[in-house]
Amino acid sequence: MARTNPHYDTLAAGYLFPEIARRARAFAAAHPGVKLHRLGIGDTTEPLPPTVIAGLHAGVDRLASVATYTGYGDYEGDPPIREAIARHYRRRGVEIGLDEIFVSDGAKPDSGNIQSVFAPDSVVAVQDPAYPVYVDTNVIAGRGGAFDPAAQQYRGLVYLPCTADNGFFPDLPAAPVDLVYLCSPNNPTGAVATREQLARFVAFARARRAVIVFDAAYSAFIRDPELPRSIFEIEGARECAIEIHSFSKTAGFTGVRLGWTVVPRDLTLEDGEPGKVNRLWRRRQSTFFNGPSNVVQAGGVAALSDAGLAECQVVIDHYLENARLIRAGLRSMGLVCHGGENAPYVWLETPGRMPSWAFFDRLLEEAHVISTPGSGFGPGGEGYMRLSAFGHRADIEAAVASIRDGLRG
Amino acid sequence: MARTNPHYDTLAAGYLFPEIARRARAFAAAHPGVKLHRLGIGDTTEPLPPTVIAGLHAGVDRLASVATYTGYGDYEGDPPIREAIARHYRRRGVEIGLDEIFVSDGAKPDSGNIQSVFAPDSVVAVQDPAYPVYVDTNVIAGRGGAFDPAAQQYRGLVYLPCTADNGFFPDLPAAPVDLVYLCSPNNPTGAVATREQLARFVAFARARRAVIVFDAAYSAFIRDPELPRSIFEIEGARECAIEIHSFSKTAGFTGVRLGWTVVPRDLTLEDGEPGKVNRLWRRRQSTFFNGPSNVVQAGGVAALSDAGLAECQVVIDHYLENARLIRAGLRSMGLVCHGGENAPYVWLETPGRMPSWAFFDRLLEEAHVISTPGSGFGPGGEGYMRLSAFGHRADIEAAVASIRDGLRG
Repeated sequence: MARTNPHYDTLAAGYLFPEIARRARAFAAAHPGVKLHRLGIGDTTEPLPPTVIAGLHAGVDRLASVATYTGYGDYEGDPPIREAIARHYRRRGVEIGLDEIFVSDGAKPDSGNIQSVFAPDSVVAVQDPAYPVYVDTNVIAGRGGAFDPAAQQYRGLVYLPCTADNGFFPDLPAAPVDLVYLCSPNNPTGAVATREQLARFVAFARARRAVIVFDAAYSAFIRDPELPRSIFEIEGARECAIEIHSFSKTAGFTGVRLGWTVVPRDLTLEDGEPGKVNRLWRRRQSTFFNGPSNVVQAGGVAALSDAGLAECQVVIDHYLENARLIRAGLRSMGLVCHGGENAPYVWLETPGRMPSWAFFDRLLEEAHVISTPGSGFGPGGEGYMRLSAFGHRADIEAAVASIRDGLRG
Repeated sequence: MARTNPHYDTLAAGYLFPEIARRARAFAAAHPGVKLHRLGIGDTTEPLPPTVIAGLHAGVDRLASVATYTGYGDYEGDPPIREAIARHYRRRGVEIGLDEIFVSDGAKPDSGNIQSVFAPDSVVAVQDPAYPVYVDTNVIAGRGGAFDPAAQQYRGLVYLPCTADNGFFPDLPAAPVDLVYLCSPNNPTGAVATREQLARFVAFARARRAVIVFDAAYSAFIRDPELPRSIFEIEGARECAIEIHSFSKTAGFTGVRLGWTVVPRDLTLEDGEPGKVNRLWRRRQSTFFNGPSNVVQAGGVAALSDAGLAECQVVIDHYLENARLIRAGLRSMGLVCHGGENAPYVWLETPGRMPSWAFFDRLLEEAHVISTPGSGFGPGGEGYMRLSAFGHRADIEAAVASIRDGLRG
């Protein structure tokens, strides 16, 4: 007599974006002819550059001929993509072994699946606010405990507040924790951790034998040369950190699907043999996954070539200029916003700290702008909105103008 | 203080194919210049047909222009691929709703992940022998219990023997079970379940409120019009079965990565609301997955078009003829083999029922042929070998000749 996994029943609500889509659809149905401006979901809008397109076509062509056709590749991605990723780290002075790189169909699956190799009763810490996948996948795995509706938190998780006071990077956990998820440049706040901030967490993790899961999906947006793009730029991180990365925002692969995770051989837990986490992640991936698409890998190799990187940076510059326009527009109205300088997200304080969903509705009704309520990323996001800089320039300008002209004071 | 998931430690051994690769490498290193023949891993070798290649190229081209570029697609695959899959079922008289189809990056991930939506203490039954992913993923999820080295079985799983006596399709479970994994055409035995055999399991599952996970990844190899290609051809299956399917062997997508799972809305468990399994699988996929690659989906739509299907069938006919050659060659030597008529796998009885790994070594050393030991698929596979019909014609002929000439009596 089959029964369902009860941990799904403890999930507090549906995924954030379906609810946003529902409200937008309802507004559109009630106001036919009104054009909606989208600053909501962080989805790329600009076409892939020529070098990447050529790489993808070449990947397809290889499958058309008996001499070059290949079937199953390596579970962790074929050597050319892993070599390209290792070379990419080396540009920043970071040495990563090919057997430490696991290429996948994206940072989201890896962010969700990485918890599988850790003990079911692990204590998990997340930034608050945070990308919902860290929380939801641990709840499904049974680590969430009961949901406290008053606090809007799972009792079993440790929340690390990220506020204007701490620059949206958390203080060290006070309670013992086993796993800590950090994301920099941060989704949703757009904050970027400094070298010192990361070093503090690395020292903490080494001392407590905790593991940092570091989500670097947005690191290509960092322009400030002083800011670390990889946690492995920090001394000692190889002993305590896993890094997850993505081609989604770097190369416009949101729909193409490619990402990777680095699990250093030096990462050794109290209970395990040296390199055990690397071995278990390999086992996890080879059991549940069959490698990223060979066609997509060819596009990824092209994106990480010198020509590909240069072309992709032009696209990222476009999104960064969008972010600047959003920040400048909102500030000219007297609104307070954070982030958006080395990140594609602007973190807007709602006027008078009104609740996020209430301001979502105001932005929708008065300015016809779809945003993302900060509270959708955890209770620490209440009173904030995430505005996404992904979009065509004219659309971003129109959205900013619509806020300026439409939003009632 | 982080610890690893202890369930990984109960996994009995590394994945089968790495061990095969290790022995093959060792032999090659010791015998330089000897050409090895591969009848081992079930990996496609023939190029993709023109219609599929054109579909993939079109998918790439759509990403090159601002007018047609798309980012994130639907978590469950975009409408065109789901419509193509629904149409594919309709050709066999089976109606599947678009909201019952979940497209993914392959049958292997879905086979591994589907257990996530069922209770952690579910009792799981597998065919013996079986594709190792069903067993290993449930062991990692904690449903395996301790491994019994004498029996070569996990004490927590229910093994359904598939033998020459029952035509390699199991009898009904004697003990209560919650989940039953069935694979037809079968990997590794090449046996195909009849309508009557499936109907017996469907009746059992409905009576006991068990769920059948039906792996139909090889159904395109069925040529006998009397044999069911989908479990949904069986009356009542919508109430008790989930079907997993793949483009890997159907369209040569082993490296391209595309598959799907059907979770009928009618599948309702004792403890749940109507359609709950469908809802939980949607939640699982939207939380851990971001949809299959848009480029790959374009290739999949092309593969399921009338022209694409006709071209793919030519490739499958090629593999089926390979299987016939393997069967004919081995039988001419007096060896006993099963399967390989509506499946790409030939299931060979070892001479004198010698242990599978011993015969693996003999085939390698005497005939220079890489095969797959049946025991790698569970204790019920002991004394058998899986021979794969995937290969170029000349290579298959050479392998058969090498067995005939090299194998000492």
